[in-house]
Amino acid sequence: MKEEMPQTSLQRLPVYLNYLKYSEDPEGYISSGAIARALGMGEVLVRKDLACTSAQGKPRVGYKCSELISAIEDFLGCNKIRPAVIFGAGGLGRALLTYNGFKNYGIDIIAAFDNDSSKIGGVFSGKPVYSYDAAKDTISQYGVRLAIICVPASAAQAVCDLLVSCGIKGILNFAPLSLKVPGDVVVRHIDMAADLAILSSRI
Amino acid sequence: MKEEMPQTSLQRLPVYLNYLKYSEDPEGYISSGAIARALGMGEVLVRKDLACTSAQGKPRVGYKCSELISAIEDFLGCNKIRPAVIFGAGGLGRALLTYNGFKNYGIDIIAAFDNDSSKIGGVFSGKPVYSYDAAKDTISQYGVRLAIICVPASAAQAVCDLLVSCGIKGILNFAPLSLKVPGDVVVRHIDMAADLAILSSRI
Repeated sequence: MKEEMPQTSLQRLPVYLNYLKYSEDPEGYISSGAIARALGMGEVLVRKDLACTSAQGKPRVGYKCSELISAIEDFLGCNKIRPAVIFGAGGLGRALLTYNGFKNYGIDIIAAFDNDSSKIGGVFSGKPVYSYDAAKDTISQYGVRLAIICVPASAAQAVCDLLVSCGIKGILNFAPLSLKVPGDVVVRHIDMAADLAILSSRI
Repeated sequence: MKEEMPQTSLQRLPVYLNYLKYSEDPEGYISSGAIARALGMGEVLVRKDLACTSAQGKPRVGYKCSELISAIEDFLGCNKIRPAVIFGAGGLGRALLTYNGFKNYGIDIIAAFDNDSSKIGGVFSGKPVYSYDAAKDTISQYGVRLAIICVPASAAQAVCDLLVSCGIKGILNFAPLSLKVPGDVVVRHIDMAADLAILSSRI
């Protein structure tokens, strides 16, 4: 089923999830039309997206909010704990070590890695910081497939190559650089500064 | 010109910029075909995107890298300093106060705001943390139009309403919540945890 879901639909699921979690009556019912109106989307699109999950809507009533939340969470794997690691324990890397939001999606950040000896051996929010030398063993031991890159752009491709060689298959990249990866590795790039500049050019 | 550029093209400009900045020969020439191949995009798309900027390519040679970088930076307003503020001086907010990447796009984070008295009056990376009460005066005094929301989801809509009432027109939202804003305010939502969960479901 997931194979068939387009990437754009997949990216809307967390938007529905956030809306439902903060809606006024999580124990009530909600129609795809009401969700569409609240989020400024088309109703057909919303219905199609939600049909990919296991949620069953009732005619003229809609979905039970709590069931729809569970169905989307199931689809996104929020109930399966998946370990992830962070590369780069600078300001952003350390902030992500303390960030609580990952666990809502079943993501468990188990450790950070850095090549700065003053950071190696440290602990932030209960998470250890290891040297790059320890990456292969840790990633293999915990079966880690997800990593977050928070190193400067100049170091990011080398770190990416290391991650790929360690078996990482999904990378969230905060370095302002397009990473080169093999075909079986998926990268999502977050460029906060560029996003703010684009916002600025639109206002 | 900017009015006419589609949002999707606008979002690709930083990708070209990052690629060019870290390309092997920034003083050499590069064709739209070479950029397209390096980034896995279509050549027609790249040529169309770059045609929106002031860059002039030469037939059979392409663009001078340094001139193309300047043209994209001009288009994105990187050379115009624009002040921005952060709401929420927790782990992520403080990490963004120290983040150097914003200045590459001409964004100057001038202050953070929080409602926690233990943070108010503090200074992080040379940037002050003020109380919410000081928001209106600071935003008006510096002509701030951009803000970053780093507060918990439960507080995000109230903060957003405050920002809108202070004249903020562009919001980068890190809270896992779809914000309701008037038509003249633009929001970009970054949901790092959802992005990682989506990555995970694709590998």
